[in-house]
Amino acid sequence: MIIRDYMDNIGRKSVLASSKLKSLSTESKNKILISIARKIRADKNIIILANEEDVKLAREKGAADPMINRLILDENKIENIAKSVEAIAELPDPVGKILFKTERPNGLLINKISVPLGVIGIIYESRPNVTVDASVLCIKAGNACILRGGSESYNSNLSLAKAINSAIIESEVDENIIQFVETTDRAAVDYMLRDMVDHIDVIIPRGGKGLVKKVQDLAKVPVIGHLDGICHIYVNNSADLDTAIKIIHNAKLRRTEICGAVETLLIDEEYAKNNLPKIISDLMDANCEVRGDADSMKIDNRIIPAKIEDWSTEYLDSIISVKLVKDVYGAIDHIAKYGSGHTESIISENNEIANEFLRLVDSAIVMHNASTQFADGGEFGLGAEIGIATGRLHARGPVGLEALTTYKYIVKGSGQIRSQ
Amino acid sequence: MIIRDYMDNIGRKSVLASSKLKSLSTESKNKILISIARKIRADKNIIILANEEDVKLAREKGAADPMINRLILDENKIENIAKSVEAIAELPDPVGKILFKTERPNGLLINKISVPLGVIGIIYESRPNVTVDASVLCIKAGNACILRGGSESYNSNLSLAKAINSAIIESEVDENIIQFVETTDRAAVDYMLRDMVDHIDVIIPRGGKGLVKKVQDLAKVPVIGHLDGICHIYVNNSADLDTAIKIIHNAKLRRTEICGAVETLLIDEEYAKNNLPKIISDLMDANCEVRGDADSMKIDNRIIPAKIEDWSTEYLDSIISVKLVKDVYGAIDHIAKYGSGHTESIISENNEIANEFLRLVDSAIVMHNASTQFADGGEFGLGAEIGIATGRLHARGPVGLEALTTYKYIVKGSGQIRSQ
Repeated sequence: MIIRDYMDNIGRKSVLASSKLKSLSTESKNKILISIARKIRADKNIIILANEEDVKLAREKGAADPMINRLILDENKIENIAKSVEAIAELPDPVGKILFKTERPNGLLINKISVPLGVIGIIYESRPNVTVDASVLCIKAGNACILRGGSESYNSNLSLAKAINSAIIESEVDENIIQFVETTDRAAVDYMLRDMVDHIDVIIPRGGKGLVKKVQDLAKVPVIGHLDGICHIYVNNSADLDTAIKIIHNAKLRRTEICGAVETLLIDEEYAKNNLPKIISDLMDANCEVRGDADSMKIDNRIIPAKIEDWSTEYLDSIISVKLVKDVYGAIDHIAKYGSGHTESIISENNEIANEFLRLVDSAIVMHNASTQFADGGEFGLGAEIGIATGRLHARGPVGLEALTTYKYIVKGSGQIRSQ
Repeated sequence: MIIRDYMDNIGRKSVLASSKLKSLSTESKNKILISIARKIRADKNIIILANEEDVKLAREKGAADPMINRLILDENKIENIAKSVEAIAELPDPVGKILFKTERPNGLLINKISVPLGVIGIIYESRPNVTVDASVLCIKAGNACILRGGSESYNSNLSLAKAINSAIIESEVDENIIQFVETTDRAAVDYMLRDMVDHIDVIIPRGGKGLVKKVQDLAKVPVIGHLDGICHIYVNNSADLDTAIKIIHNAKLRRTEICGAVETLLIDEEYAKNNLPKIISDLMDANCEVRGDADSMKIDNRIIPAKIEDWSTEYLDSIISVKLVKDVYGAIDHIAKYGSGHTESIISENNEIANEFLRLVDSAIVMHNASTQFADGGEFGLGAEIGIATGRLHARGPVGLEALTTYKYIVKGSGQIRSQ
């Protein structure tokens, strides 16, 4: 297979399919989604068989348990995938919303209306459910989608993509609105990133840091996503200790592998003297390793010395780093220097200081007295998300249906011409 | 001067200045603007002298008249620049707007708030007023700005930048919020585009196609802007002839050099038989050259044959191309193939057909019975604009203050943790 020809063909078909999908009604789009949920349920045995093949290959290659867990599809997981498709069908259509309207003195009526983005490329690994989640969010927002999954879940992804495509055909819509790249050749990814500017409007990477970094480095096509989730919690002098312990425990340990997990704790010096050992004890009781700066080690000698790299490390594990700061501005400075712009939280009973933190910390999500693990579109009431963005353009924070649209201006006149 | 060191230093100072500017109140930002307007008026003789130097050099190099006209600053133009600064001070602050708010069942209060983008790079040529327009729009939206003007207006730009910087210092704000690149070495542009990803959040090019193409090809930093304005008018069978003639005349000839000028006319075959000669006569009476396809030439032998390249040419001159189409879908197909996604207009007395055109043409601006020359932020009631974008991400159509912001989510809790 010549990758260039194969991918160009996919690209051309996507652009064509996208132009048809753009004009589908909400009802037609939801019908496709319902049909996809039905077909996934109907095909569950085929999907499980394909998945078993991937799991067997992964085990033979000696894949680690967390990877195997992300990979496995059982009846229960497939039912959850089907249910999440139905849930997205229930969400309001993000297309056709009037974002702004005005009538000009010359009588021109101007409407700013949300429209689909066009063609979206998804490059992902490990979790086969992304095949469905991404397809369905794209269809709901009127976008064609090119899916490139990882080789470790190739058979599972392909079986899910086939279910999706046959559901689309049953709905009498161009099946090319969703195209799965049927090769594990890495040249296909490089080609998508560098050479498909005319066919793909935006690429969304889903996966580990290695994948995202490659996407960001190579891409000529615009990318929405995030590389690191180096999230901070700052404990202010005014913090309630029980609240602090409870939030830090949850933010670090509820799930250590997600991007919203906290990695670094910043604590006011004064507050640390009395309270740091209690916070550390709680974490160590749950087998969390604690690394800290020299000042923190003077207060609690159970702390292991942190290296300079620790401040910019996303552990994604039961490890946390601790640093003492003079005040809220010390915390803000540290976050500006080492943060990744994802999510930061302040624990404080002083609202004035909390507001200063919320105002000055320039991350996608800033929180007061809440766990950073709430960083999730669903938890924000925004519906399903395709990821979290830490870039500053187009979409920031949870990337849901709205981020998969753009807009156009519709101007209605009655013969107006512009004067000199 | 080592360009890398010089530009890195500018970049670092911009990021620092940006973090201070982000937290300035509306009142403080407007005070800077008023002070800039005052200083520009006070410095008008210095600015005119600097400009005379540029004009002299341009004449010596044999620059064409339109270029000289764009370059010249007289007392009247300087007064208009100062007035436009004051007008931007009057506009509402785009920062701090609540874009979405919700209270979750668990009591979390979620606010999505507009915030400044950060550091904006402007790469421009010819028109020295861009130095002021861009600076002032950036300050109003809380952004630091790095200005790189063309060598042909170097002295004018520098004198305006000096007026801006001294007004900022008088306002006791970090003058580095606006930095003018004081070299005409082209390596500085290349460095901005490729190597300042960590210092510049977005680059906005202002100038001719050569400049914009270079920016789009080289940039690793995200770019907002447009390359071509190949705008179309489609005349439907139901069009009122007087309206059609009046709008086409205005859309082509009011100003031929702007991106919103129409370049191609698409006309229903039936309609053309009776009416094309009248439309052509009106254009030819105003010395407009008309190039057309074979079908149009059969109807009117004054039409010169169009080549295939004509359909994708932005003339920016008194030239128009004409093509006959079967119906509205023929027009939509032609626009999808050759358009640049800028602005297209339908002339029609049939609202159903007009709505089909407005729905299916996927350009930043679509119009009904109005001149494409209205494609302008000011004409849309959006206030001053920094350009028009034809990309699909972040900003589309007129790029005003809103496009110079992003947002963050502020989450207020009372100790909430996320359950398993």
